[in-house]
Amino acid sequence: MIVVMANHATAEQIQDVESRIQDWGYGVHPIYGSERTVIGAVGVPEADKARYMESLEALPYVEQVIGILRPYKFASRDYKPEDTVIDVNGIPIGGNQIAIMAGPCTVETYEQTWESAKACRDAGATILRGGAYKPSTSPYSFQGLGVEGLKILRDIANKLEMQVITEVMDVRNVELVSQYADILQIGTRNMQNYDLLREAGKSRTAVMLKRGMSAKIEEWLQAAEYILLGGNTNVMLCERGIRTFETYTRNTLDLSAVPALKELTHLPVIVDPSQGTGKRSLVLALTKAAVAVGADGLIIEVHPHPEQALKDGAQSLTCEHFVQLMKELRPVAEAVGRSL
Amino acid sequence: MIVVMANHATAEQIQDVESRIQDWGYGVHPIYGSERTVIGAVGVPEADKARYMESLEALPYVEQVIGILRPYKFASRDYKPEDTVIDVNGIPIGGNQIAIMAGPCTVETYEQTWESAKACRDAGATILRGGAYKPSTSPYSFQGLGVEGLKILRDIANKLEMQVITEVMDVRNVELVSQYADILQIGTRNMQNYDLLREAGKSRTAVMLKRGMSAKIEEWLQAAEYILLGGNTNVMLCERGIRTFETYTRNTLDLSAVPALKELTHLPVIVDPSQGTGKRSLVLALTKAAVAVGADGLIIEVHPHPEQALKDGAQSLTCEHFVQLMKELRPVAEAVGRSL
Amino acid sequence: MIVVMANHATAEQIQDVESRIQDWGYGVHPIYGSERTVIGAVGVPEADKARYMESLEALPYVEQVIGILRPYKFASRDYKPEDTVIDVNGIPIGGNQIAIMAGPCTVETYEQTWESAKACRDAGATILRGGAYKPSTSPYSFQGLGVEGLKILRDIANKLEMQVITEVMDVRNVELVSQYADILQIGTRNMQNYDLLREAGKSRTAVMLKRGMSAKIEEWLQAAEYILLGGNTNVMLCERGIRTFETYTRNTLDLSAVPALKELTHLPVIVDPSQGTGKRSLVLALTKAAVAVGADGLIIEVHPHPEQALKDGAQSLTCEHFVQLMKELRPVAEAVGRSL
Amino acid sequence: MIVVMANHATAEQIQDVESRIQDWGYGVHPIYGSERTVIGAVGVPEADKARYMESLEALPYVEQVIGILRPYKFASRDYKPEDTVIDVNGIPIGGNQIAIMAGPCTVETYEQTWESAKACRDAGATILRGGAYKPSTSPYSFQGLGVEGLKILRDIANKLEMQVITEVMDVRNVELVSQYADILQIGTRNMQNYDLLREAGKSRTAVMLKRGMSAKIEEWLQAAEYILLGGNTNVMLCERGIRTFETYTRNTLDLSAVPALKELTHLPVIVDPSQGTGKRSLVLALTKAAVAVGADGLIIEVHPHPEQALKDGAQSLTCEHFVQLMKELRPVAEAVGRSL
Repeated sequence: MIVVMANHATAEQIQDVESRIQDWGYGVHPIYGSERTVIGAVGVPEADKARYMESLEALPYVEQVIGILRPYKFASRDYKPEDTVIDVNGIPIGGNQIAIMAGPCTVETYEQTWESAKACRDAGATILRGGAYKPSTSPYSFQGLGVEGLKILRDIANKLEMQVITEVMDVRNVELVSQYADILQIGTRNMQNYDLLREAGKSRTAVMLKRGMSAKIEEWLQAAEYILLGGNTNVMLCERGIRTFETYTRNTLDLSAVPALKELTHLPVIVDPSQGTGKRSLVLALTKAAVAVGADGLIIEVHPHPEQALKDGAQSLTCEHFVQLMKELRPVAEAVGRSL
Repeated sequence: MIVVMANHATAEQIQDVESRIQDWGYGVHPIYGSERTVIGAVGVPEADKARYMESLEALPYVEQVIGILRPYKFASRDYKPEDTVIDVNGIPIGGNQIAIMAGPCTVETYEQTWESAKACRDAGATILRGGAYKPSTSPYSFQGLGVEGLKILRDIANKLEMQVITEVMDVRNVELVSQYADILQIGTRNMQNYDLLREAGKSRTAVMLKRGMSAKIEEWLQAAEYILLGGNTNVMLCERGIRTFETYTRNTLDLSAVPALKELTHLPVIVDPSQGTGKRSLVLALTKAAVAVGADGLIIEVHPHPEQALKDGAQSLTCEHFVQLMKELRPVAEAVGRSL
Repeated sequence: MIVVMANHATAEQIQDVESRIQDWGYGVHPIYGSERTVIGAVGVPEADKARYMESLEALPYVEQVIGILRPYKFASRDYKPEDTVIDVNGIPIGGNQIAIMAGPCTVETYEQTWESAKACRDAGATILRGGAYKPSTSPYSFQGLGVEGLKILRDIANKLEMQVITEVMDVRNVELVSQYADILQIGTRNMQNYDLLREAGKSRTAVMLKRGMSAKIEEWLQAAEYILLGGNTNVMLCERGIRTFETYTRNTLDLSAVPALKELTHLPVIVDPSQGTGKRSLVLALTKAAVAVGADGLIIEVHPHPEQALKDGAQSLTCEHFVQLMKELRPVAEAVGRSL
Repeated sequence: MIVVMANHATAEQIQDVESRIQDWGYGVHPIYGSERTVIGAVGVPEADKARYMESLEALPYVEQVIGILRPYKFASRDYKPEDTVIDVNGIPIGGNQIAIMAGPCTVETYEQTWESAKACRDAGATILRGGAYKPSTSPYSFQGLGVEGLKILRDIANKLEMQVITEVMDVRNVELVSQYADILQIGTRNMQNYDLLREAGKSRTAVMLKRGMSAKIEEWLQAAEYILLGGNTNVMLCERGIRTFETYTRNTLDLSAVPALKELTHLPVIVDPSQGTGKRSLVLALTKAAVAVGADGLIIEVHPHPEQALKDGAQSLTCEHFVQLMKELRPVAEAVGRSL
């Protein structure tokens, strides 16, 4: 790390910072410029760095402390250069084949879920998505069927030979949801719910960690690090749009995050064009773009009758739309050397 | 609510929307413009509105559905015109007197907490702040002393006749933290952790709900509504800075949110200038501004030796700074007709 | 437009708003809800709406005025349903073929520009980009060669049978730049420089209007409307990344803006992945995504020796990179039914 | 500046960067860490730094180049430690007394401007604000009276013994506007209109530079540097709200920018609570906060009949409001040791 001293720092103050770094047992490399002194600290291990940086930043004669290394280890490509491929009961996520997760936003009834799941499976999806526990901005919106929803998902997935991904919001439910789901989804609102991340780290079920609404890529990878530190290495990331000033789309889907993540981490990257745009009419184009940009998977909302959906109907595709999407997607995947 | 039909909507499609609204039992008021038809729906109760809006938005021939009323009820000033004053064991929050919450970012040791608390109390603070459970972006940062920290806070607060505010992150700890704390803090990362909000709603301990990093005021009030709906009416809000593109400050403290909230809600509003700026040198000026703009309380980080702090030393005031702050704050409070 | 009255509005105040609308000569359609009265105004022409909305919003008993129609006319797809195809001396922009604009960020020397232009032309680019007037955040950065740069661009383009696109920043230079350029670029910092837009509207040279760093799509189309109103119908839009909290990329390229624009406007849409990401390593992936999402053209920075570039070397491709990019792009274009 | 090498950088590549820095004539200080090599460059003058940083960033084996010094000189407090006080014909801006600029958003008629100006003057304003050239998002909104408006402002200001501040948008009008105005306002949309900044730098009339909608403080000061470099040292800055995701307020007034600027620069800082909030009901509270936080001046929109205003009526105070505001502001100014 690099410590930039304030421009009025005295020789004693510079000495003080150097002593602190030496006392912690690290190498000290000062550079005396004409207007600022900069001190390099060499050999500080990841596990201590955050603490030391904060303590130096608190000194009134330190202007800035700059971390040089990425503030995560197990999530970094430096640590593991080759791509992680997660095996979800035979479905690889992170390899050449693009994983297709599709289904209703919310499990409302057995029939609605079956109808959506069947159409998605027939069109090529291998993983069934559907919310049993729903995080709703309004307390007056539908909050999900809970365990009843989990049972519906599992039963239908078994019959259709699909895998299940569903959201877990409550730390007390991680084990329960793991009994029914093959992938635990941690939603955007809980990306920094650290107790939930720690519980997910103890689990051995795969986890899809959605990006927080206003999370920097670096913070997102630090959240993934919480799970990895717990020993669960089956972590995938999901870009679902970030919050910006634009109001025409519900969120701004940050597709540049996909190749950025590919540089920084070995973890698979999924894209959610439904949440990312909030508008059905934009989903097809953004799905193609997600594949072209290098996503390892897609998660898409499909509802047999969007206008009867209890949640997010405006961004749900009909089953017919989804069939069309899969058809148009295939040549794009091939064009970038991937398969569906 | 107002339904804006797509510009290519046919007479049948307009009729379809009108029928749906009538079937739900509400009044229908169409306005036929030259380029768009707009349909007003009258009498839709709050509890159903979110669901109906989503279902109409899902129709391909509907362009937009606009909610006219605020999407929260118990939190609104329409519902309760007079200011809520919360009584925290004799300390009023929301009245003429400005509540001063101060103490260390994190409880590190008994001595450090005592030193900070004593100085804060002597300077006029009545509520002791301090983190026992810390939400840290990095899994390698200090995560707090847990229950040991709660015991330190309680013991010191009792000796100094102060009240305790401290953060609860885990739904499983709401009851535990309530045994030691007088005010439960729900942090920015958990503003939309709905299970935590529901647990806080079941409690009768006062709750300070911090604004999510990228939460609109409307979403923040909907989060408060979750707690109020549970029956806990002792809710205060805390502006702590929002995430923007600016990097000089850690967050952008949105002081306009204070008078905005005063228009929209009856709940007390606290301001956190320490988190809001992330820089010790800016805290004093922003604290004065917070009082001038109408805040009902302040929460400020004070550490006897910031450079030894395990967290957030850079934004912590020294005890001497805090004494000075309280001295300079008093005339500002008086200038706006408040007392400290 | 829809006027939402304040919830304490009296019968006289409602009557006052109705009279004002009637006095302006428009239809009045009140809807009396239980908590709010809403008044629809029908027949207000575009040219007067902005003014009337502002005047009603200024009334203390009006809560909100909502515009139903888009606040632009000539730019809208309602006005002109079919796609605009701009003919730049035989190069169509907006049709099936994707226009490739490439070249150096900045014209530095004849040789550097020639080397870049030749490589780009050979790889398939038809339009030569290059800055003669450079908008630099720092006054100490290179500001461009000015008219000397324009001459270099024109000469090289003539020899290579390419068209020229280059930025105009100063209203006094619109005519001058038009003498050398086939397309005038209006940069992100000048998207709301209305005098420049008006001058561009008087010109008959094609204009590429880049999105402002924090411009909503609606504001961007209103800026385009300024040019269209002047009588210049050869306007194309260029998405070049918006400003968000993310710092890993220089900007956040908003690819969802492309299909969004396709819904709202008939104007061609170009994407700039170089400015959009600020990182050479991300340009290839984002370029493919831009084509997959429906862009009508691309503008890409190519420098023979990026590390010698006077500006933006970090985001410039080498000539070899660009050849590779064009090769990989072709199958993606074909996969979405377009040609290069 | 500090160059962080990529983690795969070879000895030759490190040597290459060192040679480049030496060839430019600067000192080289490498620090060899276990995972990254970092190279400090000492003695690089401001005027060359931006260019060298860009050139090193373009190397594929350089991960990052970090500037240590602020990228502006004449605007910095390092360069000029004492506060700049601008003398506008006897009115000091930047000293102990808070400058009050008030008047209509837009000059509409002589009578309306007179009525507003007279009320503002009588209540204590010394500088008359009013737009003759108006930057309007919509081309259909009122664009201002132009030179006719300038004449009205000058005439009324002379009669009332006030100074005039008004916006200049077009480089061709800098001299014209200077003939009528005592302070040139450069608006938020033109903060990075560098030709306009250069023209303003050539002028000797005082300039108020508003912050760009999404300008970082550092970029804002670089824009000021453009003017200062031209030799015009009479520059003041104006915080007018930044663009964020919040929609309840028109902009988010960033009051933390005021003390932040006080640390970084010697230039006076004005606050615009009218544009900053876009809502009349919030102006009073934010004005008090602006004074408490340390603003050197205020610019406030006042209209005798806001509901007849051609622009921005919703954020304009009535004359009575303004009298009340000045009355309530006085004790706040005194509480922070300032006068009105």
